[in-house]
Amino acid sequence: MNIRSDDLAFLLFDWLKIAGDQDDYTSILASAERLGAELLANHAAKSDANEPKLVDGQVVLIPEIKRALDALADAGFFAIGAAAEDGGLGLPQTIVTACLAVFSAHNAPTYAYTMLTVAAANLLAIHGSPALKERYLKPMLAGKYFGTMCLSETHAGSSVGDISTVADPHADGSYRLRGSKMWISGGEHSMAENICHFVLAKIPGGPAGTRGISLFLVPRLHDDGSRNGIAVAGVNHKMGYRGTVNCLLNLGEHTPCVGYLVGQPHGGIRAMFTMMNEARIGVGTGAAAMGYAGFRAALAYAQERKQGRLPNAEPQSPPVAIIAHADVRRMLMQAKVYAEGALALCLYASQLLDEESAGDAEAGRVLALLTPIVKAWPSDFGLKANDLAIQVLAGAGYTRDFPLERLWRDNRLNAIHEGTNGIQGLDLLGRKVIADQGAGLKLLARRVQSTVARAAHDPELSPLAGELANAIQDIARVSEPLILRAAFNEMEIALANASHYLDALGHVVVAWLWLDQALIAKSLRDADSRGRDGLLDGKILACRYFFRWELPCIRYKLELIGKPDMIVLEVNGSVL
Amino acid sequence: MNIRSDDLAFLLFDWLKIAGDQDDYTSILASAERLGAELLANHAAKSDANEPKLVDGQVVLIPEIKRALDALADAGFFAIGAAAEDGGLGLPQTIVTACLAVFSAHNAPTYAYTMLTVAAANLLAIHGSPALKERYLKPMLAGKYFGTMCLSETHAGSSVGDISTVADPHADGSYRLRGSKMWISGGEHSMAENICHFVLAKIPGGPAGTRGISLFLVPRLHDDGSRNGIAVAGVNHKMGYRGTVNCLLNLGEHTPCVGYLVGQPHGGIRAMFTMMNEARIGVGTGAAAMGYAGFRAALAYAQERKQGRLPNAEPQSPPVAIIAHADVRRMLMQAKVYAEGALALCLYASQLLDEESAGDAEAGRVLALLTPIVKAWPSDFGLKANDLAIQVLAGAGYTRDFPLERLWRDNRLNAIHEGTNGIQGLDLLGRKVIADQGAGLKLLARRVQSTVARAAHDPELSPLAGELANAIQDIARVSEPLILRAAFNEMEIALANASHYLDALGHVVVAWLWLDQALIAKSLRDADSRGRDGLLDGKILACRYFFRWELPCIRYKLELIGKPDMIVLEVNGSVL
Repeated sequence: MNIRSDDLAFLLFDWLKIAGDQDDYTSILASAERLGAELLANHAAKSDANEPKLVDGQVVLIPEIKRALDALADAGFFAIGAAAEDGGLGLPQTIVTACLAVFSAHNAPTYAYTMLTVAAANLLAIHGSPALKERYLKPMLAGKYFGTMCLSETHAGSSVGDISTVADPHADGSYRLRGSKMWISGGEHSMAENICHFVLAKIPGGPAGTRGISLFLVPRLHDDGSRNGIAVAGVNHKMGYRGTVNCLLNLGEHTPCVGYLVGQPHGGIRAMFTMMNEARIGVGTGAAAMGYAGFRAALAYAQERKQGRLPNAEPQSPPVAIIAHADVRRMLMQAKVYAEGALALCLYASQLLDEESAGDAEAGRVLALLTPIVKAWPSDFGLKANDLAIQVLAGAGYTRDFPLERLWRDNRLNAIHEGTNGIQGLDLLGRKVIADQGAGLKLLARRVQSTVARAAHDPELSPLAGELANAIQDIARVSEPLILRAAFNEMEIALANASHYLDALGHVVVAWLWLDQALIAKSLRDADSRGRDGLLDGKILACRYFFRWELPCIRYKLELIGKPDMIVLEVNGSVL
Repeated sequence: MNIRSDDLAFLLFDWLKIAGDQDDYTSILASAERLGAELLANHAAKSDANEPKLVDGQVVLIPEIKRALDALADAGFFAIGAAAEDGGLGLPQTIVTACLAVFSAHNAPTYAYTMLTVAAANLLAIHGSPALKERYLKPMLAGKYFGTMCLSETHAGSSVGDISTVADPHADGSYRLRGSKMWISGGEHSMAENICHFVLAKIPGGPAGTRGISLFLVPRLHDDGSRNGIAVAGVNHKMGYRGTVNCLLNLGEHTPCVGYLVGQPHGGIRAMFTMMNEARIGVGTGAAAMGYAGFRAALAYAQERKQGRLPNAEPQSPPVAIIAHADVRRMLMQAKVYAEGALALCLYASQLLDEESAGDAEAGRVLALLTPIVKAWPSDFGLKANDLAIQVLAGAGYTRDFPLERLWRDNRLNAIHEGTNGIQGLDLLGRKVIADQGAGLKLLARRVQSTVARAAHDPELSPLAGELANAIQDIARVSEPLILRAAFNEMEIALANASHYLDALGHVVVAWLWLDQALIAKSLRDADSRGRDGLLDGKILACRYFFRWELPCIRYKLELIGKPDMIVLEVNGSVL
């Protein structure tokens, strides 16, 4: 299996101690693993080698994708997170995220159709009118209709306020949309009975920028089965993630494109953020899962593959498994702390989402702060885990005989979509720290300090706790002058190093979660010995490794962020 | 052009002040650029999309590759570096490397056939008997015969001493080889009149390990045009670098495989190192060039592409070119210091090679120390430059409509071939520092200190000089206990963090070269103003950026290397 079930059990039950029936959860996770291994893993390489084609206006995909998605639908995996009153299973986000990780580790590009549909269904459930929900929600949760998110246009990706798709009100209460949408994953295919596109567009007369954006449900097919005026104009030829068809769509070009308003006029961006926040956890989880799958594949190879000898060995002695070489162990350890650390982060964020949904406002504020990190850190370091995994296999890892190079190509997308990591940095520093006046950061620091206090009693972990306490104080210390600068209208300077800020806080957060896990692992190891020694020792060693080899890298960054760096503001085309 | 000609002029003539006729060199570089732009760039995407195929035992390549290589041969580019007495142009390695960079930036996989042939011809020129040279050298230098390096076998890549290909002496003084060779670039095709394979094999009765290895020239065709017993058994399906066919070769399977000894029996590994040291500069240069090409493409895009607004801008104001965004400028600056820094490093190493060839033993010792860095640093950070370039383009960078994703895939090979970067770390720390008792390091430090002394008089650069002086002292300080440990037979502990040592020394060396270039750039800027202000200011700003944002990252690594880390030695399969 690509994600260890005992690791998931440790994370969910021992560490996060999620509420609910563990046996139920375990059997759902086992069912996800079974489906993933049987129906997703089998065509991951094939769908990479046979990318979607546009033939006579039809998107052609390999048949295994539909077969897998039908099985996911039959097993109820489109509805596990939806509310019971909408016909869902109402499972907590932690379990939904864990299933997402399991599926993505087997084949993220195929699972993406489900993930997008789940996110779209959630949007409809929260913001849709009763009539729209009545018509579209149930078939989406059944996996009969799929969903897409249509935000970007060719000239407007990061700056969504500049979109130019127009929605004119129509006499029957619906709208007629005109424009085009770019980078639409799952934008056209005939695998589902219908596709519900969730489209951002502007109703004429609204305010400029993002405040004038509205959200519409645009079905691929009308109720009578005839085509709505939304049509594929081209498919993008990507480096990876190829099983997920990605389209340019034209709206209202030849025939009218009918859309139904979701939520209030000009209220689209707020509604879309509901979806994006969840989608950002999804992207982070997918990135973590791909990093995890790469790490496990490299580990298996390193245990089998024999080559070379340890320093000082006799030249005639037999070669050793390459895991015996210190540098291979270093690469595997580094991949482990990235991949498992990223997965822990995503599950922690999912628990915050569950707590927020249950009315815990503080959890919601901490989640808002962490969301850009949950999206960006796994996509940066899950990718790095894939890079290390290739390096463990060396030449073999560079060939298509092993899944490592594909995972690396697939995972590269995650730093780009759902808001580039640069945008995440601006979101974190600009909105979640500066505009929030550091209030969310204080809530986070309090949680970190609680872990520090518990670790202070453990002789082995207390030095790490001290480093973590310093690190979170340093974050607060460098954040204050940035908040001040922003107040004095020096926003450009305040935000100039937002990406480095994102990196640094990300490493602090993951270090904190590693320490928190190490505490649990130690208590479990002391309390019993049910054969999980390797897993528990591994978590403790990973924590030590992260504090020793990873956390210290933030020091110089924080120093530099503390005295804002003007160099990037001096850069221009003529000196580049 | 993918490599700026004014940058090459700055590096070669202003900074390195290479000897010889600048006009001649400039016209050779211009000719390389012209050929590259006309005949290499045109099929880089096509040969990636149409990888080599094995059809009825024949390797089939797209015809553009042969057309380009024929043009390179006609223009004399197979012979520019060869000695005049062998029929070459006898150009210095600096110019050979600069041409290599120009060609690789346009299409490294096609140029690789030339690079391999040049390296093989050099091996033959140094180690071959007069008779062998007479027969094979001239057609190789004319680009009529191509060359390959056959070192690895399926079970023996990094541990070349374990090869099992056998060479039996034959009555006529030649040898008969039996075995197979893996990962052979250019291993089979019909683009050349012949292929000269340089093959490592063991003559029965020799010592075990690397000391029992001999080197053979194995021609693809006998003098009468009949096939020798070396045959392609399969081609590898790589992620990138696809235009360079990569083969599994069988030797002596059905028909006898005739080989001719090059150099002394059991003297193969030393001969091969001649070639590998040069090839490692070639790999570093190719990696630098691909990073450079990616950086330039991203820069051009960032100047054209309009999206978003600066912080505090009116929402109705027109969108700006994305280069105006601080984070985009940061990414471009980072890509620039990696790509241009890597190229400077490779040219500096090439100058050392020229000096060594002219009898300067000290230059040779510094080069020996730097060679693993010259191979590894550009392959790590040139790749990172490609990664940043993709991120500047975001979604567009992830598609095959732009060259960025291809460059990233191609460049990923460079950390793997010609000795993985892990092997380079062991070479640097084990052979070049520890076995050398730090003597080469002292020679390097003296060169660094000379730059420091010159920079100390410049008010702007003197703080950077101080940091560099500290850094090189820190390297010496952490190296001493490692040398001691090795002396006390604790080699495994001494080498445990060799990769981090390689990273850290690499950053110090590149910082040094940036400071050295900034000094020259400042003196040129003060002395004249011939419209190169942008280039010169760019070098100075890049130097400041590197010292501010890159060099400090070594501090924590050196601290940790100083007190050797046992964590990786505790790692094993059960905790991973």
